[in-house]
Amino acid sequence: MPLLEAIKSPTDIKELTPEQLQALAGEIRERIIRVTSENGGHIGPNLGVVELTIALHRIFDTPRDSFVFDVSHQGYIHKLLTGRNDARFDKLRQTSGYCGFFNRDESPHDAFGAGHAGTALSAALGLAAARDLRGGSEHVVALLGDASLTCGITLEALNNISSSTKRLIVVLNDNEWAIDKNVGAIADYLNHLITTSIYNRANQEVEQFLRSVPGGGRLLALSSRVKRDTKDFITPQASLFEKFKLRYIGPVDGHNIEQLCNYLEFCKRSTVPILLHVRTIKGKGCDVALRDPEKFHGSSPFQISTGAPKTAAAITPTWQDVFGKTLVKCAHSDPRILGITAAMPSGTSLSFLKQELPKQYFDVGIAEEHAVVFAAGLAAKGYKPVCAIYSSFLQRAFDMVFHDVCLQNLDVTFCLDRAGLSPNDGATHHGLFDIAYLRCIPRTVIMQPKDEDELADMVHTAIDYNGPAFVRYPRGPACGAPLKDTPALIPIGRAEVLKRGKDVQLWALGSMVADAHILAQRLEKEYPKLTVGIVNARFAKPLDAALLTTQAPHARFIVTLEDHALSGGFGSAIIETLQDAHLPTPVERIGWPDKFIEHGTTQEQLRSAHALSPEAIHSRVSARLATLS
Amino acid sequence: MPLLEAIKSPTDIKELTPEQLQALAGEIRERIIRVTSENGGHIGPNLGVVELTIALHRIFDTPRDSFVFDVSHQGYIHKLLTGRNDARFDKLRQTSGYCGFFNRDESPHDAFGAGHAGTALSAALGLAAARDLRGGSEHVVALLGDASLTCGITLEALNNISSSTKRLIVVLNDNEWAIDKNVGAIADYLNHLITTSIYNRANQEVEQFLRSVPGGGRLLALSSRVKRDTKDFITPQASLFEKFKLRYIGPVDGHNIEQLCNYLEFCKRSTVPILLHVRTIKGKGCDVALRDPEKFHGSSPFQISTGAPKTAAAITPTWQDVFGKTLVKCAHSDPRILGITAAMPSGTSLSFLKQELPKQYFDVGIAEEHAVVFAAGLAAKGYKPVCAIYSSFLQRAFDMVFHDVCLQNLDVTFCLDRAGLSPNDGATHHGLFDIAYLRCIPRTVIMQPKDEDELADMVHTAIDYNGPAFVRYPRGPACGAPLKDTPALIPIGRAEVLKRGKDVQLWALGSMVADAHILAQRLEKEYPKLTVGIVNARFAKPLDAALLTTQAPHARFIVTLEDHALSGGFGSAIIETLQDAHLPTPVERIGWPDKFIEHGTTQEQLRSAHALSPEAIHSRVSARLATLS
Repeated sequence: MPLLEAIKSPTDIKELTPEQLQALAGEIRERIIRVTSENGGHIGPNLGVVELTIALHRIFDTPRDSFVFDVSHQGYIHKLLTGRNDARFDKLRQTSGYCGFFNRDESPHDAFGAGHAGTALSAALGLAAARDLRGGSEHVVALLGDASLTCGITLEALNNISSSTKRLIVVLNDNEWAIDKNVGAIADYLNHLITTSIYNRANQEVEQFLRSVPGGGRLLALSSRVKRDTKDFITPQASLFEKFKLRYIGPVDGHNIEQLCNYLEFCKRSTVPILLHVRTIKGKGCDVALRDPEKFHGSSPFQISTGAPKTAAAITPTWQDVFGKTLVKCAHSDPRILGITAAMPSGTSLSFLKQELPKQYFDVGIAEEHAVVFAAGLAAKGYKPVCAIYSSFLQRAFDMVFHDVCLQNLDVTFCLDRAGLSPNDGATHHGLFDIAYLRCIPRTVIMQPKDEDELADMVHTAIDYNGPAFVRYPRGPACGAPLKDTPALIPIGRAEVLKRGKDVQLWALGSMVADAHILAQRLEKEYPKLTVGIVNARFAKPLDAALLTTQAPHARFIVTLEDHALSGGFGSAIIETLQDAHLPTPVERIGWPDKFIEHGTTQEQLRSAHALSPEAIHSRVSARLATLS
Repeated sequence: MPLLEAIKSPTDIKELTPEQLQALAGEIRERIIRVTSENGGHIGPNLGVVELTIALHRIFDTPRDSFVFDVSHQGYIHKLLTGRNDARFDKLRQTSGYCGFFNRDESPHDAFGAGHAGTALSAALGLAAARDLRGGSEHVVALLGDASLTCGITLEALNNISSSTKRLIVVLNDNEWAIDKNVGAIADYLNHLITTSIYNRANQEVEQFLRSVPGGGRLLALSSRVKRDTKDFITPQASLFEKFKLRYIGPVDGHNIEQLCNYLEFCKRSTVPILLHVRTIKGKGCDVALRDPEKFHGSSPFQISTGAPKTAAAITPTWQDVFGKTLVKCAHSDPRILGITAAMPSGTSLSFLKQELPKQYFDVGIAEEHAVVFAAGLAAKGYKPVCAIYSSFLQRAFDMVFHDVCLQNLDVTFCLDRAGLSPNDGATHHGLFDIAYLRCIPRTVIMQPKDEDELADMVHTAIDYNGPAFVRYPRGPACGAPLKDTPALIPIGRAEVLKRGKDVQLWALGSMVADAHILAQRLEKEYPKLTVGIVNARFAKPLDAALLTTQAPHARFIVTLEDHALSGGFGSAIIETLQDAHLPTPVERIGWPDKFIEHGTTQEQLRSAHALSPEAIHSRVSARLATLS
């Protein structure tokens, strides 16, 4: 890859001929396909913006100019072009490799980090307002996907553009997809913009500008969509953006570097906030990704030729699939049960419901706040909605969980997928805080299953329970436990004693039950005179206080185990309960420390790095036990 | 008030003549002015919707039909017309009186409760979708203020209207004000709709409809804004709503009951989602409220004739004012310091900054999410933004605090007003959860001052600190402590020993320091052999673990005091720290129980009702002490 190898910084891009830029795009595609086929990653979104990213770096000068990419999972090309085409890129999204998102700690070219959708426009307005305050002349470019326009935060920012700055460039990367196909009125509207000939004053000025640049006339002839008309006429089609005082130009072909450069050059000279509508094809240049844009939005390692996963399909089903299938079963038997997703039908496996009972299924787009209040409205009329939202994304709807669901005691079930680590994605995606942020809200019932059979029971229990209930479970393969034919109801707040013991009680939540078994074995081997009990806590709230306060007076000490942050988490609830019962039993809390956890190759590697491997847990507990003997 | 007295349910409204309806409006205004002048309340918003609410109940049938009022502070007339014109209305917003908002527990006519802005459209879509699923024919009416259109959640809902239901009535109550004057592109756009003659197909059909109803012709003649034109022409002005597949009609005079009824009747027959743009005057019918719409948005008890407050101005300044003036002082000395509010300049006292240093001041509208990410963007370029947001409203931006500020370790200061109780507003407004939801996020620094001099120090400290810092303080008058000329820096994580002692250590946060003094006195009187220490904790995070772990081994027990929920709060952080240090010192945690706290006349009454009066605190601590002796 001679061209890509030679790019040490964005300055080098400015030296290349148009033909070389085209060839560079090919090399970049090859590099990205190779790396993501090995490591997994957001292949589709990145292949869609190869030419666009090259054009952006051709026209602008980072880090002087600032790029803010929404979600920023489409930043791989940007990384390659800003001095990061090295061994750490080979390890993209793995331990010691680059992060899969923009990251301020990684490079000054990453002006603002992200991982959740919709923040780019607000952040870019902040950067632009800062520039204006300082009287700077540099450019701020926000790159948004079309799906970002379904997020409330983006729309709040749109409303503030005109009062915040006079100069901002917004590039709308429109590929019709969020992760799944986009939904809602704005998606329809963008589609309308693309399929209808449009012409407005801004486009007329672009035309004049293009006539003035070398090769521009040829480009104009190519751009058959531009209607020849001299009337100063703003079409209604373009007026959504005009309402927000954002000048609209486009749509342009997102895979024609020369045309993109010309339009971006026009944007650069604009003295008003301007939006360039760019049409791209998700997965372009990779047959398998083009064939299945949903699957190759974010993929596991795959065979380039066939698209087949590199690792053999797991024999055990995923937590997601068990949830999705259980929901279908429940929804079949009760038409009041409805599934709601915020643009994640496949990620959450709500796709099973979509397929089998489409009338009981809603996809509201990337709009977690609306998803939760909409669910509350359905519940207020006697329905039993189930919101399937990733743990870290439910953070978006924290106030709605509080104000609309719990305060009104409405019967909404939340299935919190990705509770625990998302190793390759890292800090933005780890679901390590939900117990803490939900436990403080009155009326919440929070549970986590030890295996997939218990997950089915808990989904059933949460739906049956007449109030707000939350079931958290991790990403990926479950435990391989056989499923009962019919899920059973679990009494709310009742823990399960898995192993009787007296001296040390291990209170484990969900996936940590397996660790508790390992720990118990080691402790009993090490201290043959001690008996170690294992409790599957099942509920982080309400805790089984009766069991806990019965055990505690006889126990030498208690260990809590949770796949969650220690600050305010499950272990914290245990010590609150003991203190309130005036029980002085010592507690060792095992969980994630009070810091942001980076990305890594596997869960095991990250746990080892943060003293949460089975060995580390054992030595910590053993050391504590020694102080108590 | 003969007409109002006779209204026992909305059915009675349907019997009245047009003249009687007009007279009823007058009686309602009188009743509302009288009650709010006694109790305080949202007088301006309610006086603006008297005729509109009468018209809504004339045309629709609650509780069969559902009304969802956004924020729902404008629901007083609705309460009077739905069987609540009784002694509990006299006590509106006071102990044992009605709540100041829609409340599902209060009446079946309150289809959905609120208190925070922007949720009405999402909730109404939920109700409408539920109706459609069941095949019902009832109507769902969402009443939005113009300020709701600045909230992301409303915009997310707009995007979902067409995919969620075919039938929904949206009434846009446009009075140009949120609490302060509205900001942003949508406000400009609505103003443009009002000042420009507009005409679209929908309005043409309204015209035909009006011709067909008795008196309609006269109304048409009155409605001079409707341009006579037969062309089937959708004006660009109306197209913001059309883009969201929401049919737009209006604007109509919100104080003409007959015209409102006719338009609402038209809406009722619409087979597509429809928006009626209603122009109202905030505070109409009350001179003092008209003169100062901002002050009379939500008012304290006032003299009807002069608008002057009923209670003499407090001698001690409010926490808000001390914050606002301190910020001005800091911002004068450092131009990097910027103030950001989400539509609350007067509530937060950021109005001082607005007045003195307008270039360092931003009002983004009711858009907390954008406010926080915008601040993060400014901080990424070296500015020092200060977001002044009420504790309960910052819940809206929880994910942005996490994902944009803390994860990137950006230097944003948060001043959390209304931390603690908002007695008259109640459960939606109490700020009792912020320590729990912020403490779990890595890198947060959370503090609360014991008095206003320390508040000034903490504002200075938080701004000086290079990372995310949060200062929480309650609503209303501070303590009357004299202010130093220049605020001092407080070492991060350092508590202050206010009174030396050994046997019992009282760790109090912020406003609870005063309670700690009372408690210490009582305990020392009761147990003369004990010495009681008082610690002004200052930081909920990081805790002064050094001091705590030095004291704990010598203390018989520790009491924590916080104006915050006990689940995951300050006391929970204290017991976490003790456990981690292997210190078994017993802890009694004083704070709010795990339930939603209702509204009440005063803080004292609510504290008494929940065992948090000085007496209750003392007897709890004393009882615990007895068990330890």
